[in-house]
Amino acid sequence: MPSSLDHIGIAVSDLEAAMEDYVQKLGFKLEARESVPTEHVNVAMLRAGTSRVELLEPTDDSSAISRFLQSGKKGIHHLAFEVEDIEKELAMFREKGVTIIEPAPREGAGGCKVAFIHPKSTQGVLLELVERPT
Amino acid sequence: MPSSLDHIGIAVSDLEAAMEDYVQKLGFKLEARESVPTEHVNVAMLRAGTSRVELLEPTDDSSAISRFLQSGKKGIHHLAFEVEDIEKELAMFREKGVTIIEPAPREGAGGCKVAFIHPKSTQGVLLELVERPT
Repeated sequence: MPSSLDHIGIAVSDLEAAMEDYVQKLGFKLEARESVPTEHVNVAMLRAGTSRVELLEPTDDSSAISRFLQSGKKGIHHLAFEVEDIEKELAMFREKGVTIIEPAPREGAGGCKVAFIHPKSTQGVLLELVERPT
Repeated sequence: MPSSLDHIGIAVSDLEAAMEDYVQKLGFKLEARESVPTEHVNVAMLRAGTSRVELLEPTDDSSAISRFLQSGKKGIHHLAFEVEDIEKELAMFREKGVTIIEPAPREGAGGCKVAFIHPKSTQGVLLELVERPT
């Protein structure tokens, strides 16, 4: 079972404009900036209290974030929940009929192992599972 | 500034089916069920660790959740962040050019004071501010 929310991923077309909205105007704290070449995104991780918001800007047309924005969607792209043992969770979820997008977890930002639950199993929410490196 | 995430609001057309997905299959814990007649919704508040997910089912066509679903959208409807003094935060946000939907806070679920920031000020995210009753 997911232990806690890790972050909320928000797709943005312009990271600087998004930082202006969230940091300068709304008062979120900038925690880290990172480029994730494997995902073709620039990332700004923000914090409000114990909660984290991940702003995701595509670096080219091949990123999932770019396809999301080009399809006319905007705003929240995914919710990420932390799990202790991602392989174990995925096996349990599959047993219950939950649809997982990847056949196996892959490497995400910050050296985490990640996998995504298909929105058809979650009432339309793209749900990421994150196992942090030990 | 928002102090922490209060909950994530997810619009669902069938609360029982959504509970099956989130509670039985994914392992979220049911914390409370409530009907909010002023908002025309049935609510199930779920928990994973310290994080809360609010499933929102419209009770009739006049609810904002019903309009959201009927427009073809699904999934995450809003993010709610807790603030200590909602009037003070709204005044500060307005000063910075943030667009607030309501002229003044109104009463939400659980006796909270709530107001919503317009998605045009948040990169497409409907952002609720919540002041809990003291």
